[in-house]
This record gives sequence, structure tokens and C-alpha cells, in this order.
Amino acid sequence: MLHVTKQRFLDAGLSLLLKHGYHDLGIQALLDDTGIPKGSFYHHFRDKEDFALQVIDRYMEGVHAGLDACLGERNLPPLGRVRHFFYMTQLHYESEGYMGCLLGGLGQELSGVNDQFRQKIEACFSAIAERMAGCLEEARQQGDLPPESDPQALAGLLVNCWEGAALRSRLRHDPAPLMAMLDFYFRAVTLP
Amino acid sequence: MLHVTKQRFLDAGLSLLLKHGYHDLGIQALLDDTGIPKGSFYHHFRDKEDFALQVIDRYMEGVHAGLDACLGERNLPPLGRVRHFFYMTQLHYESEGYMGCLLGGLGQELSGVNDQFRQKIEACFSAIAERMAGCLEEARQQGDLPPESDPQALAGLLVNCWEGAALRSRLRHDPAPLMAMLDFYFRAVTLP
Repeated sequence: MLHVTKQRFLDAGLSLLLKHGYHDLGIQALLDDTGIPKGSFYHHFRDKEDFALQVIDRYMEGVHAGLDACLGERNLPPLGRVRHFFYMTQLHYESEGYMGCLLGGLGQELSGVNDQFRQKIEACFSAIAERMAGCLEEARQQGDLPPESDPQALAGLLVNCWEGAALRSRLRHDPAPLMAMLDFYFRAVTLP
Repeated sequence: MLHVTKQRFLDAGLSLLLKHGYHDLGIQALLDDTGIPKGSFYHHFRDKEDFALQVIDRYMEGVHAGLDACLGERNLPPLGRVRHFFYMTQLHYESEGYMGCLLGGLGQELSGVNDQFRQKIEACFSAIAERMAGCLEEARQQGDLPPESDPQALAGLLVNCWEGAALRSRLRHDPAPLMAMLDFYFRAVTLP
């Protein structure tokens, strides 16, 4: 179990990184937000980079928990489970004021200058797509996707198109791009 | 015609902002890159924000020139012209080492903290989608898209999905996500 202070830093960091991105976020803003003294930050984290990498880990724990809950929902057909995951994600974005996806934000900001973030964020997207692909393969086997469908490729497309829609949703403070993308995608993949 | 020094700043800024993003880019790096003295920067630009906003204008000039050339290519059918524009854009990304799209990068980094960038970048995406929509409407009228297609909505989807693929291309230094997205999109929109 995580130390409660460390947990508070990571939770505050998630929300602050989502809004500010990496370089615009000062450690002082994080200390002000949490009311925890500076020494404690450096007790739990080597530096800001270590902190942000751990915030991503924490974010991914939430994503995987959401995937567990949604993709494991056996009362729904496989495609319904995938769509339900994105519906829940959209509700999450809404609760944060449509700040979009942390992976997309940090991926854009940092991948040109920091290879550790670039590789980590790419691995996160691959992991999410991999889990989607499992559910899409189930849909294919049940005949909900055409037999010649490629679940791996379709899962990658879904994750990528969602990220573009999440950017636009962030720019417009509006969920419409997310819903439009899902409607388009699920109509397209199910056509013979 | 732009002052030659100002032009050099904007050209260098485009490439540096694409790689570093906004906050990681110092004015000094720009001066080092161009070999132009600091006073000259402040002669042409009020501050870094003014500079970056003008780099976006410069970037959009290039985008509109590309749209003029590709969408005006009357030897190609309308959908072929749209696809050709993205093919040229991908070649452009390749020439820059797959750094992706400046609008997507700055849009993600800055829209949470700077409303001027947020609105400007949203307006840029809207303008690009608007031009695509004109060409998609032509495709619809020629029967290359189903009659019930909504060119405005399809153009928005195209721009958004492209941006997600551009993020993934940036993370992987690889054009494959861009090409996969276009294949998927053009297959989907042309199905009855």
C-alpha cells in the first residue's frame, strides 16, 4: 500500500499535470496544492521527472482498473464493453473539465525532448490497445466483427483516433468530438 | 513581405517548437540556433508568447498553401485530393523526423493554461476542417460519398483522427499510424 503522503502527491500531480503539462508545473505549486512540506516531496521522489513518471504509473493503474471493470462486464457483448470503457473515460474527462488524456498531453509535450517519457507513454498506449484487441477478437469470434477483421490493428486505430478526439475535446471543452469519433468507428468496424 | 530576420526567427521557431514544445524552449536556444542577437528578437516580437503565436500563423500559411495545391489539383477526384494533402503532410513529418503536428503539440501543452493559444489552435483546426469539408461535399455531389454523408462532420472526424495518429507517429518515429488511419477512414466513408 502506498504511503498516504506519497498518494496525496500523486493524486494532486495527476490533476495538475493534466492542466499544466510538465514544464509549466513547478514543485512549489504542488506543495501549495497539497500543503505538504518540500522535504517530504524529495523523500518520496528523486526529482520532478521521477515524480511525473510515477504519476503516469498511477494514471495507468486507474486505466487498467477501468478496463478490468468494463471489459470484464460479461452482461454486455464485447463491442459494448469496449464502448462502455470509453463512455466511462468520457465521464472522467467531464469530471475534470475536459482536460483530455494525460498520456496524450505529456506524450505531445515531452516525446521530442525526453526519450524516457516517449518510450513509457508509447508502452502505455500499446498496453491499452492490447487489452482492447483481446475484446475485439472476442467480438470477431462471436461474429460481431467481420471474420477478416484484424483486432490488433483495429485496437490501435481506436486508441489513436480517441486521442485525437480527446485533444479536440480539450480545445473545445466539449465531449462531442469523443462521441462523434466512437459513433464513426463502431459503425465502420461492424460493416461487412 | 516579411523582414528576412523575422523570417529566420519564425522558421527556426517552427522547428524548435515542434521538438521542444513551448515551455522547454528558451529564447536563448533560438538566438543560438539563428545566430541573431537578442535585441533583434525583441524588435520583431513582444515576447515569447507573441513569437509562438506568429509561428503558428506561419505554420498555417504553409498548411493553407498545401491545401491550395492539393485540393486544387483538378486532375484528381475530390477524395484523392484530400488524401493527397495528407500524403504530402506525412512526407513533411518524415522530413522533420516524425515530430508530428505543431498544432497538436502546442494544443496539448498549452490549452489548459492559456486561453489565447487554446482558441487560436481550435480556430486553426476548424479552418482546416472547413476546407476539407468543401472537397468532401464535392465528392458527395459526384457520388464518391454516399448521398446522406455529412461533409462537415466527416471533415472534423478526419482532422481529429489524423491528430491522434500524428501523436502516435511522434511517439514511435513511424509513419505507419498515419497511413493506417487514412486507410481506415477512406474505406469507412465510402461504404454505403
